[in-house]
Amino acid sequence: MTRTVLESATKTVIIGFDEPFCVIGERINPTGRKKLAAELEMGDFSTVERDALEQVACGAMVLDINSGAVFSNKMAEDPRYADNNFVEPPLMRALCERVQALVDVPLCIDSSVPEALKAGLEACNGRPLLNSVTGEEERLEAILPLVKKYNVPVVAISNDDTGISEDPEVRFAVAKKIVERAADFGIPAHDIVVDPLVMPIGAMSSAGQQVFALVRRLREELGVNTTCGASNISFGLPNRHGVNAAFLPMAIGAGMTSAIMNPVRSVEMEAIRAANMLMNHDPNGGAWIGLAKVLDAVKDGVSFAEASRAAMDAGARTGGRRGGRRSRG
Amino acid sequence: MTRTVLESATKTVIIGFDEPFCVIGERINPTGRKKLAAELEMGDFSTVERDALEQVACGAMVLDINSGAVFSNKMAEDPRYADNNFVEPPLMRALCERVQALVDVPLCIDSSVPEALKAGLEACNGRPLLNSVTGEEERLEAILPLVKKYNVPVVAISNDDTGISEDPEVRFAVAKKIVERAADFGIPAHDIVVDPLVMPIGAMSSAGQQVFALVRRLREELGVNTTCGASNISFGLPNRHGVNAAFLPMAIGAGMTSAIMNPVRSVEMEAIRAANMLMNHDPNGGAWIGLAKVLDAVKDGVSFAEASRAAMDAGARTGGRRGGRRSRG
Repeated sequence: MTRTVLESATKTVIIGFDEPFCVIGERINPTGRKKLAAELEMGDFSTVERDALEQVACGAMVLDINSGAVFSNKMAEDPRYADNNFVEPPLMRALCERVQALVDVPLCIDSSVPEALKAGLEACNGRPLLNSVTGEEERLEAILPLVKKYNVPVVAISNDDTGISEDPEVRFAVAKKIVERAADFGIPAHDIVVDPLVMPIGAMSSAGQQVFALVRRLREELGVNTTCGASNISFGLPNRHGVNAAFLPMAIGAGMTSAIMNPVRSVEMEAIRAANMLMNHDPNGGAWIGLAKVLDAVKDGVSFAEASRAAMDAGARTGGRRGGRRSRG
Repeated sequence: MTRTVLESATKTVIIGFDEPFCVIGERINPTGRKKLAAELEMGDFSTVERDALEQVACGAMVLDINSGAVFSNKMAEDPRYADNNFVEPPLMRALCERVQALVDVPLCIDSSVPEALKAGLEACNGRPLLNSVTGEEERLEAILPLVKKYNVPVVAISNDDTGISEDPEVRFAVAKKIVERAADFGIPAHDIVVDPLVMPIGAMSSAGQQVFALVRRLREELGVNTTCGASNISFGLPNRHGVNAAFLPMAIGAGMTSAIMNPVRSVEMEAIRAANMLMNHDPNGGAWIGLAKVLDAVKDGVSFAEASRAAMDAGARTGGRRGGRRSRG
């Protein structure tokens, strides 16, 4: 069975066919979060630190660290800041260091800038996940050597130089090409986590069926783990959490093994914990029963993050395992 | 593609691989509802009538009518009432007549007493679903002739004279036997809706995977539609609605085409409507968008049944289609 091994300084997380679904927390990402970008520009990491703690408390098993900030004030003073090759590498290093000082989960190093990925790889303890390579020639040539050199797993997004195809056959072919090219570099399929690309169901009514079929094929024919930006599915629709909360169990049932998502939303996390139990990945329902207590507190008006944190602290005091987190190693 | 056709006086409902999931409302059932049984004993049908209206408003496409009442007061006066063969046939007839006078959805005639099934078949308009036959010899011999004579579809529960097997292979074999025996009577596979039997996940951790695998096999190898008592999956667990709301989309993704369930609970109905959209069975997301409005009203404190009823009435006034209901013919 395919197992993708991620490590922090002391913890191992497995993405795998026989494992609970791997929740990769997406919050630490200044792209489209102007306030966070402005804070980072001033060297203020308080939101990043809060996001790290909250996401882990809510059940994130891995944290995505995206350094795609635009530093508009500094840019006005110093034109070098207009170049992400200048901004991102030191920012990625700082983000990884800050987050690792606070929480002990593996990281997912996320940037479009190869030098930022390299900075992250150097700053990270353990075995992070690299995010990402695509089927674009330039990207393959830039990223696969890093993957090989640092011996890390990588997210492979199934678009290429022609863009994102609406045809799932093409997206499968791109994924296959990446797996083959990686093999040329000596990178095994179990270190590639394919993102088959989730389209908004509101724009493409076959988007759900496409992904479910793609995930099954990727798993059966290429033997790879899979991930996705789960909330894309509900883009533009009302009651998005309800769509996401049905999509995730269906994707898990089809064989999806991870997602990059916001773990601070209880609706989605509840759906994932239930799906884990229904896939026989929650022995004796322990994680589900733990979550039910947290949700009782949420009904009483506590936020999901606070209630999760309180339950985690109580678990730590009594020596219990944290719900949904796996500690090995 | 397999299509099981149900009819009321004027409406057709299709259970099928290419159809929205068919919700069969389970509320009209005095088994385990002592208050309802006592009302029926006194000839009071007010709860039945309210349940019929509420379930249809909430999105039930078919209503299950179960006549399994115990009339304990009458029994004390007249020993004939201790026999369900005496109690159920006239009760089934009365229930069908009352419900058909109020709502125009196909019925699912549900009894362990063959004469009650026959009374229901005679009282029903259109083409009801018969509930149920099993793999038990006596039951096969009693029910299949009724199915043939009245030309109706039937729910086939995959237990036999040896009871309910925990082995999904055995449950598949029982379903296959029923389909074959039905064929001997000239009953086609598309008129058999197999219930593969859902075990509680709290008691059997493989229960989810068993059902998903069974549903796929039943569909691929026998070409039959499927149904289940969906809430069994969460028996004994905390936060049951959360388990049900993940189970239903996963079952739908695996190919399940109907369930006998309580449609008055918004959590499960939300999961089903989202799953319909994700299976491309909700053109333009119309039903989902309609439900989102109903859920907004629920957030403001209105009950799901009231909010659904108000939305249905508004839809009728503007000539819109009722969300999740299909009107043909």
